[in-house]
Amino acid sequence: MRDFSTGHRWLSINTATVRAQWPLDRIVSECAARGIRAISPWRDQVAAAGLDKIAALLRDTGIELSGYCRGGMFPATTAADRAAALDDNRRAVDEAKTLNAACLVLVVGGLPGALAGHAEHKDIAAARNDVRDGIAATLEHARSVGMSLAIEPLHPMYAADRACVNTLEQALDLCDALDPSGAGALGVEGRERAALGVALDVYHVWWDPKLQAQIARAGCERLLAFHVCDWLTPTRDLLNDRGMMGDGVIDIPRIRSWVEAVGFDGYSEVEIFSAENWWKRDGGEVLDTCIARHRSAV
Amino acid sequence: MRDFSTGHRWLSINTATVRAQWPLDRIVSECAARGIRAISPWRDQVAAAGLDKIAALLRDTGIELSGYCRGGMFPATTAADRAAALDDNRRAVDEAKTLNAACLVLVVGGLPGALAGHAEHKDIAAARNDVRDGIAATLEHARSVGMSLAIEPLHPMYAADRACVNTLEQALDLCDALDPSGAGALGVEGRERAALGVALDVYHVWWDPKLQAQIARAGCERLLAFHVCDWLTPTRDLLNDRGMMGDGVIDIPRIRSWVEAVGFDGYSEVEIFSAENWWKRDGGEVLDTCIARHRSAV
Repeated sequence: MRDFSTGHRWLSINTATVRAQWPLDRIVSECAARGIRAISPWRDQVAAAGLDKIAALLRDTGIELSGYCRGGMFPATTAADRAAALDDNRRAVDEAKTLNAACLVLVVGGLPGALAGHAEHKDIAAARNDVRDGIAATLEHARSVGMSLAIEPLHPMYAADRACVNTLEQALDLCDALDPSGAGALGVEGRERAALGVALDVYHVWWDPKLQAQIARAGCERLLAFHVCDWLTPTRDLLNDRGMMGDGVIDIPRIRSWVEAVGFDGYSEVEIFSAENWWKRDGGEVLDTCIARHRSAV
Repeated sequence: MRDFSTGHRWLSINTATVRAQWPLDRIVSECAARGIRAISPWRDQVAAAGLDKIAALLRDTGIELSGYCRGGMFPATTAADRAAALDDNRRAVDEAKTLNAACLVLVVGGLPGALAGHAEHKDIAAARNDVRDGIAATLEHARSVGMSLAIEPLHPMYAADRACVNTLEQALDLCDALDPSGAGALGVEGRERAALGVALDVYHVWWDPKLQAQIARAGCERLLAFHVCDWLTPTRDLLNDRGMMGDGVIDIPRIRSWVEAVGFDGYSEVEIFSAENWWKRDGGEVLDTCIARHRSAV
């Protein structure tokens, strides 16, 4: 396992972590000033700053994208909504390509309307079929431009409203069904990545009794991204009470050891939604803490 | 599938549903007055009312126990704490027997100390080993008195602090390991129940992509209890924001159809923790709503 204690070469900052404090261009410059080599930005932040401007800023600073957030949200109940979701995902793929992201992260969506509090139906199996079909369609375009798609299994507490792919096993079943060839579809920086793989966030999967076995199943080709934060006890909010690494109960080094045992050698991306704590602190303090905890707790 | 629309013969009330309103003896009499045939009480409520008094009240009213809440909480870091947990579980088994409960429900526990906000370690695999050993020891006593143990897989959002058994598959793996003979160990009311089985609560398992397959695997012998409530969108609190059946996104009749397809013919037990809604309403209104929703939404 790589030694993270002596530096932060493999730290990436998901820009949601300091989104309350700074716009994206400022986040990039603050990361660059601290020797942080990668980020993972969100589409709305990129749109607000301007895609071309951000692409140029990344080239100038040499900062890489460990991922791009996010595509997905496929389930729908009308043909028009389905088509709109596919169009939007194609645009997300193209933006990810423009920014030279390692992958486009997919938060696949749950029951249509549930995020707004009004689920249009209760058929989670139907939503999962929509997800399968939506990924299949998006994958065709992604292959054509050479961009990997990373399905992010979300914690089961988000099954209704954010993502009905809720375990690594389920995500890998989708990968095997839609991208059976696996490795070799896209070559990035000398190692083979599958066209369709997973983004593994410890927050979503740490509880899973099958986690180690499914990481071994995924292998290096399907593991496109590795995200860290921590699970607090108590957790006071389902969405925005994630902890800084080391402040919760997740044995992050153990999970990283499993991921690296199959050959993962990419970034460890910090993604913290924290309305009542980290989003209220100075952005520089947050980044400095991410660096310190990357060394001590990841 | 049984037709629940015409009556509530198979409705059971988990007494947590109206615990904020009434003491246990009042709950029993209010249920009896409404023709509710079963309850599932909590140990602290029984202790407050008196075990023998409640046993007599149940005999007088003819109300059955669809389960008894609860044993479990096995993980510990000291020998003394382990021994105390086993002692407590033995007492819970004996109380369940005195009350003639269908089963003792096990909420197995998570990381030691996490429920109080201070986890003593982060090794969930070790906690799971503690759970396996604790159930094995308790099962010996439970067999000797003829009481079934029902492992309740809890939603993964409770993995840290309440239960590190988080899927039906995981619970059934435990059952198969500790009680390989399965059916026939205990005969209750003409049908064969396993000595060790599961309590299936739709709130905890509705999201699971393997749910239908694992229910089929469980079979009638392992399905010792069936609990219902609903998953609200949004869910505002991890513990105490469960919904009344019909108010959320769970397709309860579909899950009940899977359970009944393997021969389950027991009670449908309503268990609702709802600090900001149902616990603030009149207890009679809550019970009447449970009856109505049992007919229309279960």
